[in-house]
Amino acid sequence: MSTDDTTETSTDTETGCGASNASNEAETESGSKCGASSSEAEADGDVTRTAGTPTDADESASTCGGSTPSSSSGCGSSKKSATDEKVGSTVDDFEADPGRLIAIGLGPGQPEGMTQRARGALLESEHIVGYTTYVDLLPEEVTESAEELYDTPMCGEVSRTEEAIDRALAGNDVAIIGSGDPNVYALAGLALEILESKGATARMVDFEVVPGVPAAQSCGARLGAPLVNDTVSISLSDHLTPMPTIESRLHAAAKEGFTIAIYNPWSRKRRENFRKCCEILMEHRASDTPVGIVHGAGRDDERVEVVELRELEGLGETDLVDMTTTILVGNEETYVWDGRMVTPRGYESKYDY
Amino acid sequence: MSTDDTTETSTDTETGCGASNASNEAETESGSKCGASSSEAEADGDVTRTAGTPTDADESASTCGGSTPSSSSGCGSSKKSATDEKVGSTVDDFEADPGRLIAIGLGPGQPEGMTQRARGALLESEHIVGYTTYVDLLPEEVTESAEELYDTPMCGEVSRTEEAIDRALAGNDVAIIGSGDPNVYALAGLALEILESKGATARMVDFEVVPGVPAAQSCGARLGAPLVNDTVSISLSDHLTPMPTIESRLHAAAKEGFTIAIYNPWSRKRRENFRKCCEILMEHRASDTPVGIVHGAGRDDERVEVVELRELEGLGETDLVDMTTTILVGNEETYVWDGRMVTPRGYESKYDY
Repeated sequence: MSTDDTTETSTDTETGCGASNASNEAETESGSKCGASSSEAEADGDVTRTAGTPTDADESASTCGGSTPSSSSGCGSSKKSATDEKVGSTVDDFEADPGRLIAIGLGPGQPEGMTQRARGALLESEHIVGYTTYVDLLPEEVTESAEELYDTPMCGEVSRTEEAIDRALAGNDVAIIGSGDPNVYALAGLALEILESKGATARMVDFEVVPGVPAAQSCGARLGAPLVNDTVSISLSDHLTPMPTIESRLHAAAKEGFTIAIYNPWSRKRRENFRKCCEILMEHRASDTPVGIVHGAGRDDERVEVVELRELEGLGETDLVDMTTTILVGNEETYVWDGRMVTPRGYESKYDY
Repeated sequence: MSTDDTTETSTDTETGCGASNASNEAETESGSKCGASSSEAEADGDVTRTAGTPTDADESASTCGGSTPSSSSGCGSSKKSATDEKVGSTVDDFEADPGRLIAIGLGPGQPEGMTQRARGALLESEHIVGYTTYVDLLPEEVTESAEELYDTPMCGEVSRTEEAIDRALAGNDVAIIGSGDPNVYALAGLALEILESKGATARMVDFEVVPGVPAAQSCGARLGAPLVNDTVSISLSDHLTPMPTIESRLHAAAKEGFTIAIYNPWSRKRRENFRKCCEILMEHRASDTPVGIVHGAGRDDERVEVVELRELEGLGETDLVDMTTTILVGNEETYVWDGRMVTPRGYESKYDY
């Protein structure tokens, strides 16, 4: 869920918010037990796929919400009044015995990056809910075994998470999926917060988190060994965290010799955040500090580069750095050898080799 | 590799350094192409298992090192003169065309926590090298498909990594394994450093890192959603990082509102580090800040507890906190709900639910 799902929290309409990445989802209505007005009809083993349209205000695509009030995403505006995703049905709206809810981290996004536990949990789930891009990446055996797939494009993570919870409260075993790990800028917390707001409990749906490989580690592996010592992860998105807090954290991380994993580094509306970040890093670190940049990890447009810190700011205006990019900044001891970033752990001071 | 492999870098003989956790490894000599004086004989598909004894000074158990000088581990003493693991053979000692070297993170340790990519890479490897505990956890299909398993007990990570590299330089396809992720306080960097010291290159052995789920994420999943915002990981082991540096990092992390994942929190010889850590956290965070403690994740003696920060120091003297424990400290907004730790991402300020 890490890199990409956080994109959804971006305020930037330019980055594709509201645009569907999948062109072929079937907007079928679901016949399985859904929502507060639960019908007992089941889908007979056929997979139905429901595409949510979180930018539509009328919520017509949501077949499973409890009393489904307007859960229009509104992503694309930074004003609270416009961005509110309201979730409304409470636990009392559901009559069925609840099913299970499981938040699954898919890791780097490709099926082979998934743990066997994630695969097993997906195969056991009746409904799978997620961002369209990740639902599209699921292996066929998983999509075929599910009764229903519900996917929405970017920016609908609150309404999508509510949809998953409503489906579980209505009696289905539901998996909500994302890339990376559910704890890294992702949906584990949101699921618990929405469960609470509905008057439900985590126990009621046997809420479980299946961890995945976070973007920092997927990208670190591609770069060699950039993160082998104490490390900080910081998101440059100020949609949910104020910029002065982010700046203060960057100062502290850079000053204290942490290696730094930067999530959500750049978007058109946040050019200034990226510029400021580079300025802060340059204040505390040598200008030739190695910086690893991984764009679109595991995708067709993947690019991996190692540059010097002084070059980083300029790259903000290139295709290399956008919301699908993770940036790993070395510490004072990080060096580049044979094309790899190496952050020594300190063995060389204890052992001869 | 994260939590447990770092144990090996501990200076604490009490934590089991030098003691073998496996009681039944067969100390067979290997017939496959090993070492500088490479023989062409292969193992005929039979798996041989070689148990290294890194605490033996005579290195008799190492069948594959190049010119294998004394690579006694010495773990257990904190003096450099005594702890040195010397690695000596260089790339020139090997005549064969090098094989491949791949550093694989197994994730939480149990086979189901492994990614499918890790499983695939293990199945393709001729030799698998690792800490005995993790080699013992490998699924049967993996151990059966390998030509050779080489495992050593705790504290031999430098000599074990050299062994893996020598085997690759001697022409074998080698996997070096550990729990967690190879970038989190683990072997990815050490492998590159030793390759360099031997005059080899990463390209020469097609060096690759297969990422895994780090302990912070495995443990975070067990606790709910403790790490959903900017996060720091810090190891309390001062074997390779000076304690003043660790303290300074703890101050910065606690002051700046990061959630904090603490690795290697306690051992008998480092009681003071843990005490100091608790004192620093209490200086900056409310005494009722939620703290998640996961002991022995995925093992028979697993325990998961959520406590308040004020209770943490006292737990240092209990079985709950040792070198197999990961501690996740909430930030100012983290709360406990229905037995789970929840660190809000900030949605509640943007959305109504």
